[in-house]
Amino acid sequence: MSTTRPHVVIVGGGFAGLWATRALANDDVRITLIDRQNHHLFQPLLYQVATAGLSAPDIAAPLRHILRAQGNVEVRLGEVTGLDTQARTVSLRDGGTLGESPLHYDYLVLASGATHAYFGHDEWAGDAPGLKTLDDALAIRRRLLLAFERAEACDDPDERAAWLSFAVVGGGPTGVELAGTLAEIARHTLKREFRRIDPSQARVRLIEAGPRVLASFPQSLSAKAQRQLGKLGVEVVTGAPVSAIDAHGYTLDHGGQGTVFVPARTVLWAAGVAASGLGALLGNQRDRAGRVLVEPDLSVPGRPEIFVAGDLASVQQDGKPVPGVAPAAKQMGAQVAHAIRARLAGQAATPFRYRDFGNLATIGRMAAVVDLHGFKLSGLLAWWFWLLVHVMFLIGFRNRLIVMINWGWAYWSYQRHARIILGGGSARATEPSD
Amino acid sequence: MSTTRPHVVIVGGGFAGLWATRALANDDVRITLIDRQNHHLFQPLLYQVATAGLSAPDIAAPLRHILRAQGNVEVRLGEVTGLDTQARTVSLRDGGTLGESPLHYDYLVLASGATHAYFGHDEWAGDAPGLKTLDDALAIRRRLLLAFERAEACDDPDERAAWLSFAVVGGGPTGVELAGTLAEIARHTLKREFRRIDPSQARVRLIEAGPRVLASFPQSLSAKAQRQLGKLGVEVVTGAPVSAIDAHGYTLDHGGQGTVFVPARTVLWAAGVAASGLGALLGNQRDRAGRVLVEPDLSVPGRPEIFVAGDLASVQQDGKPVPGVAPAAKQMGAQVAHAIRARLAGQAATPFRYRDFGNLATIGRMAAVVDLHGFKLSGLLAWWFWLLVHVMFLIGFRNRLIVMINWGWAYWSYQRHARIILGGGSARATEPSD
Repeated sequence: MSTTRPHVVIVGGGFAGLWATRALANDDVRITLIDRQNHHLFQPLLYQVATAGLSAPDIAAPLRHILRAQGNVEVRLGEVTGLDTQARTVSLRDGGTLGESPLHYDYLVLASGATHAYFGHDEWAGDAPGLKTLDDALAIRRRLLLAFERAEACDDPDERAAWLSFAVVGGGPTGVELAGTLAEIARHTLKREFRRIDPSQARVRLIEAGPRVLASFPQSLSAKAQRQLGKLGVEVVTGAPVSAIDAHGYTLDHGGQGTVFVPARTVLWAAGVAASGLGALLGNQRDRAGRVLVEPDLSVPGRPEIFVAGDLASVQQDGKPVPGVAPAAKQMGAQVAHAIRARLAGQAATPFRYRDFGNLATIGRMAAVVDLHGFKLSGLLAWWFWLLVHVMFLIGFRNRLIVMINWGWAYWSYQRHARIILGGGSARATEPSD
Repeated sequence: MSTTRPHVVIVGGGFAGLWATRALANDDVRITLIDRQNHHLFQPLLYQVATAGLSAPDIAAPLRHILRAQGNVEVRLGEVTGLDTQARTVSLRDGGTLGESPLHYDYLVLASGATHAYFGHDEWAGDAPGLKTLDDALAIRRRLLLAFERAEACDDPDERAAWLSFAVVGGGPTGVELAGTLAEIARHTLKREFRRIDPSQARVRLIEAGPRVLASFPQSLSAKAQRQLGKLGVEVVTGAPVSAIDAHGYTLDHGGQGTVFVPARTVLWAAGVAASGLGALLGNQRDRAGRVLVEPDLSVPGRPEIFVAGDLASVQQDGKPVPGVAPAAKQMGAQVAHAIRARLAGQAATPFRYRDFGNLATIGRMAAVVDLHGFKLSGLLAWWFWLLVHVMFLIGFRNRLIVMINWGWAYWSYQRHARIILGGGSARATEPSD
């Protein structure tokens, strides 16, 4: 009978949660997969939705559809609002009546990921949106496209310059991708479309508080990335943290040389991540970013029936943290499935070991950097490699084909097909509120 | 010098406004095209976005991009808020500083289209959304997909049934398309994806107050459409107007037999259109639906420099109103360009004459009706004809190709790739507020 099978509750349908779910497909358990969204998101391409290169559905697939043939799983759209580790229940808010009674689990997998963090400056969120969900991506797309519209409708040269001033805060992979693509849009995509402004005069800045962009890559690739960004038209600022952001611009802190206010109507945030708030419900020890410290098999100390996987888990390996990237999340998902299987068989689980296949980052049109354990690539070849890997891993054949066509088209024409402003009545967008 | 050329201000980048703009490409005028949205929308396929078959960017193209090579046009994102026919100026709200000074015109073309109307029941708008813009389509998509999620999360059989009860009010082409596609989603697309509900048990009703669906078609095609709808699983109710709508359902008025309340969490409105409010700014005579009565050349009586085109214009031909369809709007756009050209040359404009090529409506998978001046088609052949015509007229080569691939895929797999719930934190959707 199905009700006597152990119940595995998995929270989060990202790479970690979905891979754990799939890895348990042939086990004698019943699984409930809970997510706040109805879709799995291919997060590595989210910046393409934000920059109008891809449509939202191109990089997302309904969780129910992905898992329709896996008989032992039930997908629930909902948000976990409480956790009782004594009674082994989670509470769920999902708009249905089932949510009112707590859901009992035998094994619990927390894989709710991370969100962006403003290092104690949550008041910046409105003026410097971050990129974690499809809704974030559409909001950023809207801002970018409206900025050029506002500049075109402006008579005042200072205000016009502020609308054409863009800043991306954070020189990690997301920041580099956003800045590079933004420069491409300004220089190529919008060419000839405006009558009063020259979009290629837009100023695109990438701001990194640390000494170099792509700090997780070898020094030589960081330098190459910075040069490639420069060629695309991105002004890279390193070693200067942003000390203030408002609707009119941002302040750069040059240390001893004082601070400089830079007018900019569009600031994007790619600087920090914090683990999902769900980790706090556990009451266990967490690291500075809110990630849960776990045992070598990814279970929670003192709670062998609870596991944490993906960006919510704080895992050290060889003295370094396992990075918050898709391959690590997938591997942790598979590890959790293995550990649950071991528990059920009364055996010990083998510890998690992250297999690092290498590190990729794209910079913009025909530019990327690749580091495969010392084998380094940059430029066009790296870009093709990056493209191949990302399209290969996109879920679902249809999406791969459509993404390839969209990119082929974009490459050939410099066009970005998703330049559609959605939401809130386009012409009546909110203005800086002062 | 460009400033001495006559200034043509065109309000609305739909079929009428865009076709007028293009038809003036080689004339010695300068054109300002104003739209509240940054894109031209291929409205005939909007129901496909609402029902998750196409992505929003598949059926829209940025106006700036379409018109980038037409040197005599400037595109402005903005909303017209005032009109002074004495001073010949329009006021614009567009978020830029240019909007603060009124825009002077020599010729004005009003082509701001229509919106949905609730026949004096604006309080129904929240519970029975209509379909005119991409934002409307995404809101409807969200409601449809969430209804199945809510039903799945429900323990109470009555509430579950209400979530699986769908109604489309209005048996015109849009209502027929929505109801037919909705039945296809319930019966085929969502098959096997749910564990507690059987989506194919959903009740999809199409409600028409008049005696038959597709009233603008010959009687025999209406009957065929109704049969085809029945085969797809749509329950067609005719001759019974809806007398009330709230978050819990709708009330059907069966005349002498009294009224019946039907529980339904999802009601879509496809019953009425009203002309854009811009027509009222003219102060001229308008028909019941708010459309502006025009001279035979589409100019406004007493204002030979102002034209009205598309759904905002009330035009009679051979005793019948010219219908609010895309071909009529395009033809009116071309007519207005012709009339402006005649005015500039000091000649009389020929009157507008609508060339009716026929009438098409799609019903669902492999079913449509076509009426080409008495040559009638229905079923599969009509559907292929409908498909061909619509893809042919989609703006932009890329869109055509992508739409074909999406449809090919949908046809073969019964899948709808855009089943992604966007906006507002999916799990925390607003519930009926009682």
